[in-house]
This record gives sequence, structure tokens and C-alpha cells, in this order.
Amino acid sequence: MLREVPWRFIKSLSGKKEREKTGMTLVEGPPSVMMALESGVSIEYLVMSRSFFSSPGGGEVERLLGRGPSPPEVFTVPDELFERMSETKSPQGVLCVVSVPFRFREGVPASPWVEPLEVVGVDIQDPGNVGTLVRSASAVGASSVVFLGSSADPFSPKCIRASAGTVFRVAVKSPGRHVAPPEYLLKRHSEGLEVLKTVPQRGVSPWEADLTKALCLVFGNEAKGLHEDVLSLPGQEISIPMPGGTESLNVAVASGIILYEALRQRMGHS
Amino acid sequence: MLREVPWRFIKSLSGKKEREKTGMTLVEGPPSVMMALESGVSIEYLVMSRSFFSSPGGGEVERLLGRGPSPPEVFTVPDELFERMSETKSPQGVLCVVSVPFRFREGVPASPWVEPLEVVGVDIQDPGNVGTLVRSASAVGASSVVFLGSSADPFSPKCIRASAGTVFRVAVKSPGRHVAPPEYLLKRHSEGLEVLKTVPQRGVSPWEADLTKALCLVFGNEAKGLHEDVLSLPGQEISIPMPGGTESLNVAVASGIILYEALRQRMGHS
Repeated sequence: MLREVPWRFIKSLSGKKEREKTGMTLVEGPPSVMMALESGVSIEYLVMSRSFFSSPGGGEVERLLGRGPSPPEVFTVPDELFERMSETKSPQGVLCVVSVPFRFREGVPASPWVEPLEVVGVDIQDPGNVGTLVRSASAVGASSVVFLGSSADPFSPKCIRASAGTVFRVAVKSPGRHVAPPEYLLKRHSEGLEVLKTVPQRGVSPWEADLTKALCLVFGNEAKGLHEDVLSLPGQEISIPMPGGTESLNVAVASGIILYEALRQRMGHS
Repeated sequence: MLREVPWRFIKSLSGKKEREKTGMTLVEGPPSVMMALESGVSIEYLVMSRSFFSSPGGGEVERLLGRGPSPPEVFTVPDELFERMSETKSPQGVLCVVSVPFRFREGVPASPWVEPLEVVGVDIQDPGNVGTLVRSASAVGASSVVFLGSSADPFSPKCIRASAGTVFRVAVKSPGRHVAPPEYLLKRHSEGLEVLKTVPQRGVSPWEADLTKALCLVFGNEAKGLHEDVLSLPGQEISIPMPGGTESLNVAVASGIILYEALRQRMGHS
């Protein structure tokens, strides 16, 4: 049982290539690790620094570990060794390794809505924006969040941290570059979802659109928005009015706003 | 006229101490520099790299420079020298230096609303969140954005970039640490503004609150939210419902959502 912690392997998961090769990723920090434990996702290793282990957070992690059916391999290591594995500037003393796609013991997280509320990000390049979009989608109970085109990998350690661990609370999909965004969206359209494309200007305002229907809400690149081949697809365009004259909102904010409007309408205040 | 570009001075403005000592800050990248030029703020120096100067962006900057009454000192420098001044990893070829507080030749940016819509951030520590909050406030035409407590400096180069230059489109205030948040908010309350405090749970939902009144919307720290001494002040608490079970939203997203709801109600859809 006295196995050595695979710290070189854990460290290597900061790199995309290594994640793709091994099919695993790194989850760092108490909020994300605790959400992973609570979600019932299958965990390969869990590592705590000595100081974290003896802190209240360490007790909380142990309690959550006790609840799962097959506890992962758990290591407690000296703080210096923990820092060597960590991807962050200020390591917070706890990390775990999980396989991608996630294996949820009790099934993929479910949505509270009868009508699907799918969120699609196309070419969203900043990991902070990808993670924040997942966090907002999880908060409103989206049925799924899909990243297409040149979007950042939602299962990278950075995106997982930016999601505050909510990547384990909502069904997140990243089908890869071989799935062309227009094809994907046309398929969803043919399956009966209303495809709504977010544009900075000229679309209907969110409160004028019916967001209670089965929806596929599409958001584009930070600088360039959505490409013409997506804009030419069937479906309404939607824009947040900006009376202050600003040219656009941050994509994570814009998506949060439209998801909130869907929530407001679905809670019966349309 | 053949003055040398003060590159050491410009570079030093990345540091908070140097900004405080000189009363100046650094604005980098085409979107922010163009917004500074369009806003009529008084500019000390403007610097372009040779490659930027001969690009379409260079032509656009020259056109905007021609419109102002007292053109700033303008330098065109070799790309290597530009990179030495830049604060960013991928310099975009244009920067300018402005004094803080900004001096707007035609007055501080005005709000389109009759009833004030003031945004207050308390202890918002991430420069990206501070800048994004300014960007959302500018988009909805907030009457002012005030940062209190241990908030990041909204006039730092990082916050200005995160605001996409909208820091020049809305009245931004950073009164400094000697102004205690509860005192400031009590004063606004006594001046007739309704103080609304954002909390992760238990508050009224945004659509249940009347956001058409003279408002002061308060947002707290990323991890800890608002402190008890602010929560105990008069005024309603407001929360965004999260049926997905997530514990909280990113503060920049939450503030964008509540500002959007104010906009929706004020545009006559309450």
C-alpha cells in the first residue's frame, strides 16, 4: 500500500497533449475537488498537502471521501512536493485526477427543465470565459453545454478552476474539431431545438424572444462573434440592448444574461 | 520636436506605486486606445509601433487624433522598443498615457437614465472582474461605478484592458481605502438612493425588486461576498435564483445579470 505519489505524471497533465494521450485531467483547489467528490465522478488519485490535510478543509474532504462507494487512491504529501505538482501560482493544498470524459457513478447531471436548454460556445478561446460559461449554465440548470470550433478545452485544469468545479454539475461536451459548428447546429435544429444566435447588434432583445421553448443558445468568439456560416443557419438572432453605447459585452457576461432571461421566463415571469 | 520616447517612464506605469506617484496610467491595445481617443479624454503621449502605424489600425488612430483639439505627443517607434514598454505578453502595437483621474474635455460621460443607476463594487479583487464590471455598467448606461474597500484599482492597465476601454465611457470612481464602504453607502441612502445588496441566497429575485427607482447596486468580494457591516445597512437583499444548485455565480456575471434586469425594467418591460 505504500505506493509513491505519481507526481511527475500529475504535473504533466497541465499539458494538453499529455491529457489527450492519457485521457485524464487535473482538478485543483478545494471548491473544484469538493464538487468532484460530491458529484460522484470516478476519481483516480486524490492528493493533499500535509497542511491542507490538518486544516478544516482536509476534514471536509475526508468526510466526502467516506461517502463514496470506491474511494480513490489518496496521498498526503509534504507541502513542497505538493507545490511541485500544482499548476497554480498559489497552490491550495488539494488536487485530484479524473478521467475524461467524466464517469459519473449515478449518471450525468440532470437538468430541472422539461424543455431542453442547451448552451453552445463556438470558438470561445479564453479558458476563463469557457469556465465561467459552464458555471452560469450550471447555475440555471442548463441541459448541456457544448464547446465547438477552436474553443478552449473545457476539461483543462484552468477551465475547471474557472468553472469553480461546476463542470461536474452540468453535462459538458467537447466533441472536438472534427465536428463542424454549422453541421452540429443544423442537426439540433432538425431535432426540434430552436437555434438562437447571439449577436452584438440588430437581434431581438432577450425579453422579446420566447426562451421557454426547447432551445439551443449559441455564443461566438470573444472578438469576432459568430461566423457567417453559423449566422446563415435557420433561427432567430438575439442581442442585449446597450443604451450606454458600448460596442459589446464580455461573452461570459452576455451568456449569463441570456441564460438568466431564460430562467426568468421559465419561472413564469415572461 | 525630435524628442525621445520616454519608454522607461511608460514601462514603469505597470507598477501601482509609480502610477500613484505620477498620477498617470497606461492604456494598451487598439480597442482601449481608440475608446480613449473617442471619449475626448486628455492624453499625454501616444505611442505606435512601426508595424501598427502602417496597418489599417494606424490609419484609424491617425483619423481619431486629427479630430481632437489638442493632439497629444505622438511617437512611432521600432517594434522591439514598443515591446519593451508593453505590459502584455502579445503587444498590439499601440498605447497611450493618460492622467488619473481622467480629464474629459467635454465633461464626464453621461447616463441615459433619469433615475440614477449606480454600481458599487466592494473588495472586488480580480482585475478582470473589476474591468468586466465596468464594461457591463457602461453597456447599460450606469450613472457611475464606484470601487471601495480592497478592490483592484480600476485605472490599472489590466483593469482598463479588461474593460475593453469602456472605463472612458462611464463615470468610474475609486475613492481609496480611507472611505469605509458602510459610510459611503449610508451617505447614498440618505441622499435618496435605494441600496440593494447582492447575496448568493435568500434575497428577493431580481424581477421581484423594483429596479426603476434611484438605485445603488452593491456587489461583494469574489469568495466572501459582502461583509456583515454592509449587510446590516438599510436596503433590500437581492439574489439570482440558481435552480441548477450551483452555489454562486462569478461576480462579473452576477452584476451583469442584475444590471440587465434593471435595463429590462427601465425599458418598460417590468
